[in-house]
Amino acid sequence: MSRQQRQALDALLRDAPKSPDATVEEARAGFDQMFQAPAPEGVTVRDTTLGGRPALELDTGDPAAAVLLYLHGGGYVVGSPRTHLALAGELARRARTRVVSPDYRLAPEHPFPAAVEDGLAAYRELLALSGSPARVALAGDSAGGGLAIATLLAAREEGLPMPAAVVMFSPWTDLTFTGASIDTKHGIDPIFVRSDLEVYRTHYLGRQDPSTPTASPALADLTGLPPLLVQAGSNELLLDDAVLLAARAAAADVDVTLQVWGGLPHVFQHHTALVEEAGQALDDAARFLSRHM
Amino acid sequence: MSRQQRQALDALLRDAPKSPDATVEEARAGFDQMFQAPAPEGVTVRDTTLGGRPALELDTGDPAAAVLLYLHGGGYVVGSPRTHLALAGELARRARTRVVSPDYRLAPEHPFPAAVEDGLAAYRELLALSGSPARVALAGDSAGGGLAIATLLAAREEGLPMPAAVVMFSPWTDLTFTGASIDTKHGIDPIFVRSDLEVYRTHYLGRQDPSTPTASPALADLTGLPPLLVQAGSNELLLDDAVLLAARAAAADVDVTLQVWGGLPHVFQHHTALVEEAGQALDDAARFLSRHM
Repeated sequence: MSRQQRQALDALLRDAPKSPDATVEEARAGFDQMFQAPAPEGVTVRDTTLGGRPALELDTGDPAAAVLLYLHGGGYVVGSPRTHLALAGELARRARTRVVSPDYRLAPEHPFPAAVEDGLAAYRELLALSGSPARVALAGDSAGGGLAIATLLAAREEGLPMPAAVVMFSPWTDLTFTGASIDTKHGIDPIFVRSDLEVYRTHYLGRQDPSTPTASPALADLTGLPPLLVQAGSNELLLDDAVLLAARAAAADVDVTLQVWGGLPHVFQHHTALVEEAGQALDDAARFLSRHM
Repeated sequence: MSRQQRQALDALLRDAPKSPDATVEEARAGFDQMFQAPAPEGVTVRDTTLGGRPALELDTGDPAAAVLLYLHGGGYVVGSPRTHLALAGELARRARTRVVSPDYRLAPEHPFPAAVEDGLAAYRELLALSGSPARVALAGDSAGGGLAIATLLAAREEGLPMPAAVVMFSPWTDLTFTGASIDTKHGIDPIFVRSDLEVYRTHYLGRQDPSTPTASPALADLTGLPPLLVQAGSNELLLDDAVLLAARAAAADVDVTLQVWGGLPHVFQHHTALVEEAGQALDDAARFLSRHM
């Protein structure tokens, strides 16, 4: 079934309405519309705050569970903890962790480094609440995956301890666009073209330097980071963002696992109902977290 | 314990006698001396032939087991199925597979492409014996890891079906030495310096072009290859051989997993008695094989 599943998912994403000229408000509304799946059964959701920002807490019913700081994707411009309830909830359920997902500030109203500041404040508070960095991990998808690493670079700068591990789904880690896949996967990626990424980057960075380490963490010195799991599909412009991050981590003596699924799109882990690889990837991520927490 | 374990292994390898001016015969005798551990308990070994070459068969006692074609390392110059009994046996035991490991021809007596010809002949016979490519996987370490991919490139050329999966420990995949790690890991790698690799390459290739795809499979078009698992340590000159192979596989839509362990040396999976990561890596490899076979 897998080839048919991949093709069905590709067609679904390819046929989704694209509005390259949408306003920020329209883009946010469209994203909210597309990602409104609830948390999985057995996962309860409540409003909270973290690091001075509104946040959602996902509880899998285990009071002793370790905690995952989940940073949602959306190009630093769209999305919220609510659009990623299903994805973060599936990961929490499989890893038997609690999740806290902060509603970090978005661009263009709050450009870089606002998101990194919110990530750092969230991580700092979670460290204090958990009692031990070994009971905390970070996870994120797309821009949220890049933000997870940027958050830890900022935390390292401040002398904070590192968490147990980081899991990333299709992280956006290189805002200088140096990877070949941004061109070689043009037309193959069913979601993005280069100009989509350029719009997000402009909203986020304005005229700030995209090679700043906390903006493009794949270009940073990653020394001292905890074990990383990086997952991506081969059908995405951002494939090389995942590959480069893994390569740079390995060069810096960081324990790192890179998993690439051929023929799958950006953050395919959203689509557990459509492709079996989504569930496998989430199971692998859960096993990785369990090993390290 | 892990940091101490890593340091102890590093010291052991660093202090091992190095004989850069050894003859080929002396190098082989030294390698045989260093790797004489027997097969693990519960694994029986018998002499056989495969693809016209002598071979060892490792049997884990399950008559229905799938079969692993194991290609030993040793720079295409030293080593044999017997020097890799412990490593191949540990993988077979954990994956519950049978292993057949051919004594492929070595350089300089038999330069490239003799090893690839023997790999292909072995694979062809194993396909015929097994009845189904889905019941066959390939594995190898160092030069044997590169040879596993080269064998499949040759098999693809001949229209043979692909096996279920390939597992590689620290594969040597780029005989053009383009990876940065061959310089950046100089002095950090406790086993090799660049001239060691140059000696092996000269024996194997003579004046043949190192960028030939079956000599440097990381430079080849990897389209159509089965799922790959690539494991390496960050303390090795050949780190980028693993990273590059994974990157090229991902670009070609191959399912690929790259695992890098920070601070560990070339083919650390040999050292299950010294570092716990060796056993973890072998368990991960076994799980990967079980998922795909």
